Amino acid sequence: MAKGQDKRSFIGVDLGGTGIKVGILDAKNQLLSTEKAKTHSEEGSAAIVKRIARTVREALEEARIKPSQVGGLGIGAPGAVDINKGIVIQAVNLRWNRFPLAKLLHDELKIPVTLDNDVNVGTWGEAKLGAAKGYNDVFGIFIGTGIGGGLVLNGELYHGHFLTAGEIGHVITHPGAVRGRRTLENGASRTAIVNLLSQLIQSNNPSKLTEISGGDPSTTRSKGLALAASKDDALTLEVLKSAATLIGIAIANVVTVMSLPCVVVGGGLTEALDKRWVEWITESFEKHVFPPELRQCKVLVSKLGDNAGVVGAALLARERLARGR
Amino acid sequence: MAKGQDKRSFIGVDLGGTGIKVGILDAKNQLLSTEKAKTHSEEGSAAIVKRIARTVREALEEARIKPSQVGGLGIGAPGAVDINKGIVIQAVNLRWNRFPLAKLLHDELKIPVTLDNDVNVGTWGEAKLGAAKGYNDVFGIFIGTGIGGGLVLNGELYHGHFLTAGEIGHVITHPGAVRGRRTLENGASRTAIVNLLSQLIQSNNPSKLTEISGGDPSTTRSKGLALAASKDDALTLEVLKSAATLIGIAIANVVTVMSLPCVVVGGGLTEALDKRWVEWITESFEKHVFPPELRQCKVLVSKLGDNAGVVGAALLARERLARGR
Repeated sequence: MAKGQDKRSFIGVDLGGTGIKVGILDAKNQLLSTEKAKTHSEEGSAAIVKRIARTVREALEEARIKPSQVGGLGIGAPGAVDINKGIVIQAVNLRWNRFPLAKLLHDELKIPVTLDNDVNVGTWGEAKLGAAKGYNDVFGIFIGTGIGGGLVLNGELYHGHFLTAGEIGHVITHPGAVRGRRTLENGASRTAIVNLLSQLIQSNNPSKLTEISGGDPSTTRSKGLALAASKDDALTLEVLKSAATLIGIAIANVVTVMSLPCVVVGGGLTEALDKRWVEWITESFEKHVFPPELRQCKVLVSKLGDNAGVVGAALLARERLARGR
Repeated sequence: MAKGQDKRSFIGVDLGGTGIKVGILDAKNQLLSTEKAKTHSEEGSAAIVKRIARTVREALEEARIKPSQVGGLGIGAPGAVDINKGIVIQAVNLRWNRFPLAKLLHDELKIPVTLDNDVNVGTWGEAKLGAAKGYNDVFGIFIGTGIGGGLVLNGELYHGHFLTAGEIGHVITHPGAVRGRRTLENGASRTAIVNLLSQLIQSNNPSKLTEISGGDPSTTRSKGLALAASKDDALTLEVLKSAATLIGIAIANVVTVMSLPCVVVGGGLTEALDKRWVEWITESFEKHVFPPELRQCKVLVSKLGDNAGVVGAALLARERLARGR
């Protein structure tokens, strides 16, 4: 169990609704190789499992690691997971319900498999080897098509009583909103930002996004938003800043209740945008957190970027599977 | 350290801006006696410490406990405290700044003293001997002139990195509010409820509160609100229900992030009002928490009522001081 004694490599898998990413960590936690594939969830569960296994084999080949040198595999899946049973309880994107992912991957690859939520493994990666390295208590928030969060307390991933902890995308930020339920994700995810910008452009607000998106702003992705922002498009900046303000408030609320020393901000949108994005988030966080000494809580930018998930999943595998032996 | 081995009694003190309450717990955690006094903060710190000590001696006499039978004293103070140093960092009500309360009380009473925040000790009392007995993870929320919260995780009081955890009264519930910072406490404490009702009555909305308060609704306290509610005064019920809805949302947000199995609702306003109050809170909680399985999280009503603080403080003393020996 002691560090450095386990010379084996560990595999990390980041499974999403559209993509699969695999990374191999060696005994010194160096990322030897990464490999990507499309999820193609429409082809069904069996095909997804086979595609994960194939991508793993490719990554192992690329890293010149033999199966005998592998200690195990960790995988982060989108949605609610039962980490103890290795079951994905529900993943809407993948149309999975109580899906025994860990067992099926083990059957396919004949190595120990451990499962967790995708955002949890990303948070874990950042906490152990990324922006929050050295911190024992970390909140991770990842902003992309949706908004997810993960929590590390006392040096351990915190799952909570119902194993669902971290769901910051679903906190209510506008209780008085007319349409009833109004969450952070409804107000500040990339999806929400693009929807609002499309509506504003349709209402004749001028924006460079019209040209950037080839005439249909509703199809804009993170890179398009980043391009418009880099050209200082006023409408895009206004909507991004208001989303960042809301994210800062949600983070402030978590830190006000939990008294945390740091927060890591990541996700596809964060990676695409320039540093103003996290500056706006930080500004709002510092304005709204209580008591004032909590302004010392660091708002850190993800360091591992798109690799946070595979790194965290592989690290989790190393720890859990070592413990289990 | 084993339970039942320590035959000594422990003293719990609940210190507030207006009142001091003392309770004596025997070896079986039975409350032998309680004693109350006014804080009279205007008389200064030394007088407060002496008055606490006198109230403690009175409670011991009433319980027929000799000082030699006492293992120690726990005290909950309003505001930010450094539990390790026994210092009240800041208590606005008492005009204290870095006040060494534990040491001064020890000098006065010659027994070991441990200090914590008033809401934390109330939560601890409810978690160990009150409504949440048997739960390892508990959020306590106390609604009175202000709103405070405390967190128990993994069977221990959770203080967080900056020792300020639990401050749910200061989470932002209305980010868009014109006056800038808009917190749960600004929207749902007894103070906020009474202010809003006074304004509405001044704007010629009829209410039984005018008569109940003797013509000045702004002086209404919890009992007045409870009386108006018991007479089904429509204006009072409307304002109380909207405050309860907001409290339910704030609790839902904490549980959405922390995935907790239970929450205890207490405080002066909760004790005064009838069961509709917590029913409204629960209804709003269940409507807003995510994912849906978190509706299984129990919203419990405080069982120890006004004694939660002294019981929790005495229990904390027993545990911490036993550990320290």
